[in-house]
Amino acid sequence: MQQRKIEVCFTPALIPLYDLQNSIVVAIDIFRATSSICYGIANGAEAIIPVATVEACLAFEKDGYLLAAERDGKVVEGFDFGNSPFAYAADKVKGKTIVLTTTNGTHAIDESKKTAYQVIIGSFLNLDAVCNYLKTQDKDVFLLCAGWKNKFNLEDTLFAGAVVHQLKADNYFLDDSSIASEDLYQQAKSDLQAYTAKTSHSERLIKLGIAEDIKFCLNLNLTDTVPVLVNDRLVKLN
Amino acid sequence: MQQRKIEVCFTPALIPLYDLQNSIVVAIDIFRATSSICYGIANGAEAIIPVATVEACLAFEKDGYLLAAERDGKVVEGFDFGNSPFAYAADKVKGKTIVLTTTNGTHAIDESKKTAYQVIIGSFLNLDAVCNYLKTQDKDVFLLCAGWKNKFNLEDTLFAGAVVHQLKADNYFLDDSSIASEDLYQQAKSDLQAYTAKTSHSERLIKLGIAEDIKFCLNLNLTDTVPVLVNDRLVKLN
Repeated sequence: MQQRKIEVCFTPALIPLYDLQNSIVVAIDIFRATSSICYGIANGAEAIIPVATVEACLAFEKDGYLLAAERDGKVVEGFDFGNSPFAYAADKVKGKTIVLTTTNGTHAIDESKKTAYQVIIGSFLNLDAVCNYLKTQDKDVFLLCAGWKNKFNLEDTLFAGAVVHQLKADNYFLDDSSIASEDLYQQAKSDLQAYTAKTSHSERLIKLGIAEDIKFCLNLNLTDTVPVLVNDRLVKLN
Repeated sequence: MQQRKIEVCFTPALIPLYDLQNSIVVAIDIFRATSSICYGIANGAEAIIPVATVEACLAFEKDGYLLAAERDGKVVEGFDFGNSPFAYAADKVKGKTIVLTTTNGTHAIDESKKTAYQVIIGSFLNLDAVCNYLKTQDKDVFLLCAGWKNKFNLEDTLFAGAVVHQLKADNYFLDDSSIASEDLYQQAKSDLQAYTAKTSHSERLIKLGIAEDIKFCLNLNLTDTVPVLVNDRLVKLN
């Protein structure tokens, strides 16, 4: 293999600066979209269709899909559910197709799919599986943090750092944001929950009464499933 | 004073996401524009006029100014000098006005001045002076990293972290990027040179033969001068 590179992009707003033709994009929205997507696909959801807007989500209303919409941390009125991972348990999603729109996560997927070689979904719930897959691919790695409304956030960065940490022994070139992410992960890894508790986003989510969601999203390796985007649908990577 | 906030912006590309009306912007381009600006003003330059383009710089040619232009780490052909700090020594700049354009630093100043309450210039060379000034002001703080061609870079982030480190005891609200910057600074501060040596940008600059510049730009508190933008000219803050 040629030397591959790892780039960490802290917000979807910066995607246009990068050439993604030879890159596998790992979409990251730890609290909570990509954690819930991983959990849902692991629990047997047939597919999750990420869409950018609430309107696009509603367009699927008559097709027998489950409709999930979150804005600013809350389920949008009139929808089946939002992006709490507990809504993606097996009894709710097995065999179902879910159409999902969220504040940050689906936006990141939408922006990156236009030019990327491939888009997969990462979270602490499937960290090792994501890394093991990337190692086998002769492709660059683009760790795309969804952030919060196009600004940097810490929890997505920590996950990016966790991936860098696992991959770097394989002789990837690291950009500055990869180096920074890994160094932050090294500081945080002994207690991810304590570390993320000091972030602004975490505080916001706790105010929304979803502290249990946060705790759940920091579990490591609950599944070896990697969701991948195929024809605008997230399905299980074979 | 009301509770003030500190925001760290990792690239000028994200400035439009922020409201800067009540913020003092600290423009940061450690390797090398803002280090050289601080050194030049400290050494008695009357003013430094930052301009965004080489053409804008050339427009001052007949007015008896020193013209400085850097692109991709090199002095642009036909100009007096670029942004090596050694070109800003007292024997060269005392009493002079310099017109300066650089790859990243002057772009950051140009983008932020449109909406900011005030723009000042920060570098390790005047770290304490910048922090002491900010502490006395009833304003929010916006630490603007120039980055590299609108991407994140580590050395500017470390300086932002150094400022956060000094200010945070004064009860500022910190955004996620402030927290991350300070944590990175904590890791790096015992040996800034060793830490920055692992960055991509540092490698690029070493290839350009300016290792001495880099070393110089990591000196702490050589001056207590703070350059401030007044009517599009950087002058000494009184």
